Amino acid sequence: MIERFKKRIKLDSSVVRGSGDDCAVLKFTQDKYLLMTCDMIVEGVDFTLKAKPELIGRKAIAISISDIAACGGAPRHCVISMGIPKAMSVEAIDRISKGMFDIAKVYRINIVGGDISRSEKLVIDVSMLGEVEKKNLVLRSGAKKGDIIFVSGELGGSIRGKHLSFTPRLKEARTLVNKFKINSMIDISDGLTQDLTHILRMSKKGAVIYEDLIPVSLDAQDIEDALSSGEDFELLFTVSKNEARKIMKLKMSNFYAIGEILDQSAGFNIVDKVKRHKPLRPKGFRHF
Amino acid sequence: MIERFKKRIKLDSSVVRGSGDDCAVLKFTQDKYLLMTCDMIVEGVDFTLKAKPELIGRKAIAISISDIAACGGAPRHCVISMGIPKAMSVEAIDRISKGMFDIAKVYRINIVGGDISRSEKLVIDVSMLGEVEKKNLVLRSGAKKGDIIFVSGELGGSIRGKHLSFTPRLKEARTLVNKFKINSMIDISDGLTQDLTHILRMSKKGAVIYEDLIPVSLDAQDIEDALSSGEDFELLFTVSKNEARKIMKLKMSNFYAIGEILDQSAGFNIVDKVKRHKPLRPKGFRHF
Repeated sequence: MIERFKKRIKLDSSVVRGSGDDCAVLKFTQDKYLLMTCDMIVEGVDFTLKAKPELIGRKAIAISISDIAACGGAPRHCVISMGIPKAMSVEAIDRISKGMFDIAKVYRINIVGGDISRSEKLVIDVSMLGEVEKKNLVLRSGAKKGDIIFVSGELGGSIRGKHLSFTPRLKEARTLVNKFKINSMIDISDGLTQDLTHILRMSKKGAVIYEDLIPVSLDAQDIEDALSSGEDFELLFTVSKNEARKIMKLKMSNFYAIGEILDQSAGFNIVDKVKRHKPLRPKGFRHF
Repeated sequence: MIERFKKRIKLDSSVVRGSGDDCAVLKFTQDKYLLMTCDMIVEGVDFTLKAKPELIGRKAIAISISDIAACGGAPRHCVISMGIPKAMSVEAIDRISKGMFDIAKVYRINIVGGDISRSEKLVIDVSMLGEVEKKNLVLRSGAKKGDIIFVSGELGGSIRGKHLSFTPRLKEARTLVNKFKINSMIDISDGLTQDLTHILRMSKKGAVIYEDLIPVSLDAQDIEDALSSGEDFELLFTVSKNEARKIMKLKMSNFYAIGEILDQSAGFNIVDKVKRHKPLRPKGFRHF
């Protein structure tokens, strides 16, 4: 459906990149682009009302921070629309908004507006503006043959809590774009396999990843869970072998090399523990 | 609730105006500000599924255009989040999106991104960016004693169709800010009385309006309907008497002078057809 939408869209020259990446990229100043993204979370789909209200508010904003980070930028401003069920207590709403204000403060984001509506189920939509130095912009489409593929942390099992309380990898992303040449990047929201597929499709490349190298979270049930389950919100990025060597020497961070970018004709394969090559098909979270 | 939210918000110096107006106002270029607004519409509250799908999509975008216009600006880019019920047909979704693309084309707005989620009821949230020349920015807070109060068209009865098919008064707003000194402006979404109250509160002023001068739509049931019913999406603005004289000579447009801005101590009154002064209390549409 999103693909069908995109075909219809006419954009003027002030749009550097429209939909199809983690953020839209818009002309801004001589040195910087403006980044824009929106993310909607819905009760019963992305959270339940059993969750701590603060964490619901926090998640609504953290998802957009993660998108801005995945493009190499820094978040700046956001607006928040909320559809609130009539039965929801003022205390719950206050606690949701506290979760929003707290994370906005930590990441120095201005909450500059909003809209409140009535709705049967709680729904929160956050639209965020960020800024990125032109030289630091990273898109999904820049992966090159021979690139090493990295993830920024352990994968899988986020349903057991991390999907609500994850830390957007802003600091890591900013370090990466400031110190290294990052060829492509995305945040893992739909699952490793599916999000790497997004990079491969946009970059017209293939890839191989190694089961032995995938950092599987203690919360994950198995490797399949680490490959497919959504909402890890780790960074997935590719860099040249030369840059990869430097990144692997970094002490500060949890970056794991998991595979390599290949020609598109090589397809997308995983090498399992007994060295068998198996084709990967995206099985990540789908809303429909 | 919105008031309580606002008190908690800390904003940095790049924010010229945070929440509390039709748009947030952000620093941009030497000559221009960036405007940002978001508006959520929810099935069963802002529309029903009996409406033409194209008009639902159109309305979602038109509301934000109206907000940008009310600040004197021009819309530029938007992102769209949709929560879509599982049972909704692909045809209906296509027709909703057609309504969006069609109005975006007419108003030269780039649809640069979006998010799609599952949801029990259809919900659409549009966040829009606009630009306004610094000299053309108009806020709710600028009304001055002695200003003449204008509306841009007939009021009331929008529930009988106009709320879905209204024309955002962008051309009128741009003409006003380019040719005249507009002291304050808002778009009428909550009803004339309530939206004029927003101007009076932000400007710390009082006002008198004249029942005889209110342009009552043929769709309105009575004067009460014209004063209180929401979603007219006409402009409500105030200008000095000198500017008012010039505006009343304009041939192009439907601007109606309806009253005058007074000192705050005068309160907010309406003069009825037999010249009685009656205090006005906002009775516009409230979501809760």
